[in-house]
Amino acid sequence: MSRKFVCTPTEPVVQTKAGKLRGYAVDGTYTFHGIKYADAKRFQMPTEVEPWDGVKDAMSYGYICPILADPVPMGEVMVPHRYWLSHENCQYLNVWTQSIDSSSKKPVMVWLHGGGFTAGSSIEQVAYDGENMSKYGDVVVVSLNHRLNILGYLDLSPFGEQFKNSANAGNADLVAALKWIHENIANFGGDPENVTLFGQSGGGMKIWSLMQTPSADGLFQKGIIESGVLSGFLNGAKGNGTLIVSAMLEELGFEKNDAEKLVTVPYAVLAEAYKKVAPSIAKQGAYIGCAPMQNDFYLGDPCEVGFTEHAKTIPVMIGTVLGEFAFGPGIPNKHQLSQSETEAMIVKKYGDNADQLMQLFQEAYPEKHLTDLLDLDSLFRAPTKDFIAKKAAYNQAPTYSYLFAFEFPYDDGKAAWHCSELPFVFHNTEKVPICNVPGISDRLEEQIFGAWIHFAKSGNPNGAELPEWPACQPRDEATMVFDRTCAVKHNFDNELIDLHHKVASKLPFEGTVLY
Amino acid sequence: MSRKFVCTPTEPVVQTKAGKLRGYAVDGTYTFHGIKYADAKRFQMPTEVEPWDGVKDAMSYGYICPILADPVPMGEVMVPHRYWLSHENCQYLNVWTQSIDSSSKKPVMVWLHGGGFTAGSSIEQVAYDGENMSKYGDVVVVSLNHRLNILGYLDLSPFGEQFKNSANAGNADLVAALKWIHENIANFGGDPENVTLFGQSGGGMKIWSLMQTPSADGLFQKGIIESGVLSGFLNGAKGNGTLIVSAMLEELGFEKNDAEKLVTVPYAVLAEAYKKVAPSIAKQGAYIGCAPMQNDFYLGDPCEVGFTEHAKTIPVMIGTVLGEFAFGPGIPNKHQLSQSETEAMIVKKYGDNADQLMQLFQEAYPEKHLTDLLDLDSLFRAPTKDFIAKKAAYNQAPTYSYLFAFEFPYDDGKAAWHCSELPFVFHNTEKVPICNVPGISDRLEEQIFGAWIHFAKSGNPNGAELPEWPACQPRDEATMVFDRTCAVKHNFDNELIDLHHKVASKLPFEGTVLY
Repeated sequence: MSRKFVCTPTEPVVQTKAGKLRGYAVDGTYTFHGIKYADAKRFQMPTEVEPWDGVKDAMSYGYICPILADPVPMGEVMVPHRYWLSHENCQYLNVWTQSIDSSSKKPVMVWLHGGGFTAGSSIEQVAYDGENMSKYGDVVVVSLNHRLNILGYLDLSPFGEQFKNSANAGNADLVAALKWIHENIANFGGDPENVTLFGQSGGGMKIWSLMQTPSADGLFQKGIIESGVLSGFLNGAKGNGTLIVSAMLEELGFEKNDAEKLVTVPYAVLAEAYKKVAPSIAKQGAYIGCAPMQNDFYLGDPCEVGFTEHAKTIPVMIGTVLGEFAFGPGIPNKHQLSQSETEAMIVKKYGDNADQLMQLFQEAYPEKHLTDLLDLDSLFRAPTKDFIAKKAAYNQAPTYSYLFAFEFPYDDGKAAWHCSELPFVFHNTEKVPICNVPGISDRLEEQIFGAWIHFAKSGNPNGAELPEWPACQPRDEATMVFDRTCAVKHNFDNELIDLHHKVASKLPFEGTVLY
Repeated sequence: MSRKFVCTPTEPVVQTKAGKLRGYAVDGTYTFHGIKYADAKRFQMPTEVEPWDGVKDAMSYGYICPILADPVPMGEVMVPHRYWLSHENCQYLNVWTQSIDSSSKKPVMVWLHGGGFTAGSSIEQVAYDGENMSKYGDVVVVSLNHRLNILGYLDLSPFGEQFKNSANAGNADLVAALKWIHENIANFGGDPENVTLFGQSGGGMKIWSLMQTPSADGLFQKGIIESGVLSGFLNGAKGNGTLIVSAMLEELGFEKNDAEKLVTVPYAVLAEAYKKVAPSIAKQGAYIGCAPMQNDFYLGDPCEVGFTEHAKTIPVMIGTVLGEFAFGPGIPNKHQLSQSETEAMIVKKYGDNADQLMQLFQEAYPEKHLTDLLDLDSLFRAPTKDFIAKKAAYNQAPTYSYLFAFEFPYDDGKAAWHCSELPFVFHNTEKVPICNVPGISDRLEEQIFGAWIHFAKSGNPNGAELPEWPACQPRDEATMVFDRTCAVKHNFDNELIDLHHKVASKLPFEGTVLY
């Protein structure tokens, strides 16, 4: 059915601090793509964009940050992608909103994409499209690109004061985007005092790192951290850049200490040099960048150094999915396996711990097929539980826990993988066919989407058609398990995850890392 | 609303000549992405893929061909893109079908993408998605990637027999794809004896070049050429590769005649060398490749050398759009201009010919705003009319003419631009917001889509809810003008286009070439 498209010389036009922007409207959803929120020279802090006269069009997604790897097309039925054009001048954001009246003051939801701190973009996944979230949730949705990998997170500070915070340039872009939102979002119908960050994987890590970043204090009020706590992830960002940058300079044939040369060399050349020298430096356990570095800009991992006083006051919703890295093929003929065949597979993987894990798994997930234990994640779940326990212990702002355990209609039924909740979160299951189970997935989408929207509106996810969902209390993790039937379970997987994490962290890594 | 997703270990699985492939189904549309239809070494003819055992997944779009340029994100509201991962090993196709029963014998529609012979891909535009076309048309839709630019069209034949047909390698990929379709499409529910090529811009050029390619005879039965005849477009492909390849060898520091070196140098390096040396060789009027070269594989432009006996027998539907290269901003306040303001703008552009052009334009398009004359295309329309006249004169197979003249709801009303009919053709206006005019665009979509589907089924576009549309006769061009009201007009713009083409071909090129 036709929708009403509006884009005239005068409508919709919004005044921003730097100048006027024109977007378009579809059935009342105002859409602005590719708004430049900052400029930046390589390795430098971002600066405000230059003002302009007249009206600029904001109808094409902006450049995304170049990445180190050459991705291979794969797994598209599980995680459909939208690749885009890249350039290091990538400080762009997108806005979807139901109003451009500055008195509307609708909740603002800011999407921080995944891909660690090295890859991804605001539009990398088909599921990231913000139109439905804005329309069905009556919220202002913002998504954004920022500097990644060595452009965003490489410490050159030992090579000169001019590179003081290059190790956190990517996160500084995020702060600049939040500042742009704070100053401009009212004219897009948003409430600058009600900004919720939500992000998955690296996007979740960005949220807790921004909670620990004083210059971001007051620029957002709440956070939804989805599969965003992974043990030891930031270890490569400890120390400083002396070794890695020296090695890059040598590899490129530049003088020792002449880091200025790295400012002008083409990105592709810089990236090749980094990829060549980084592995051996990583092996020494030294700093290789590609994640925020603790300094006076970023105060460090809250689970290691403690939450800042401000971070303690931020309501957080946080969770993981059942299978996370289970990107590989499903268990063949899962539902036709005999009990003994099933047990044999589990013993093969978990050895002496198999019996106890099976018992704990069946207690935690009585309705699940036992083979899902083969896909069970604890690499995210264990440190996420630790985050929850520590945050809840402060008892200063609510912390809500969830676990996404939906079985997808793929192969013989596949445990939820990393990213797989996102089409539900964005109300975009219509765009991602694998999510669709007639009679089931629409309801689950309303429940998950509703919880995210309610949390963004009020800091409390209750209100959607879900069982009552209490915040976690010290030593009481109340977890909303999102599944065909949603239910809150208290401390339901503590023993399972404890044991699994001990066992799994010694197993060879079996997953396929798409991110 | 949820749709039914099916992808089990056994369903949907299709047997091809080389092995079994698994796709997925959504509400009964079977979908196979990224099927490898051929392999090829650089500059060599494609070969059949190696057979495999077991079942391969075909659920991720394959690599697209690398391109020479770095595109800039722009014009997305007019032509939304889907960029993708590139690699010269890019012989992949996609299939959407309503049946995988080999007795179904449904019409097959093969989409050849635009971008000249240098750029683009099977999924470059959001509008190219084949699901709706298959579902609403009950046809098998195939789209494909092939080698482009210097990978597909660079003549190295003067440098050795091993490079005999490198100048047409990209079109040889197309023939390989058509051969794959001929041999395999029955198992995807298609009729290998009822294959219609449709393509726009470069895609249209591919169709008429394949009509003149003996090895493609019998591999397709009909063609729909959309904005695919452009005067002088292939001039750069005349002569042979001696000059350009010698210049590239010199630029790269390789020995004269050592063209083998060009086989192994990375594409990015090859492309840089080409881009550096090509302009000066083009200035001399010499061959620079990037389009098919006339030889015993490809017999040449039918309007120059005459249609082959086989080409004469192929039913063709062919047309253009009103504005083609009118990608720039619309005429400001078009509908508020006074008659004298309007005329002043037209006189400014067309000088002494303005009065006659205005009269002819108003006769051809009495319902159009006079400022649309400023956007009127004749660069495609004039040679397209020549193609139609020549083809119809043979009188051996029907030739249907159309013109897409829809005014889009953008700025103050914008004349149809290059590519703008595609969302209607693919039944994808729901995916491209700018097409949407409530009460108007849905009906136009049914009419255009219906005509394309009827032509694919029977070689005759009649049957959709359109006025009777006769084939062209010698000296009688019966043109279906697709607009808010569709109508057939006979020789309605002959004088207009004659004069406009004479005038416009002397004007500086004002358009923005996105393709």
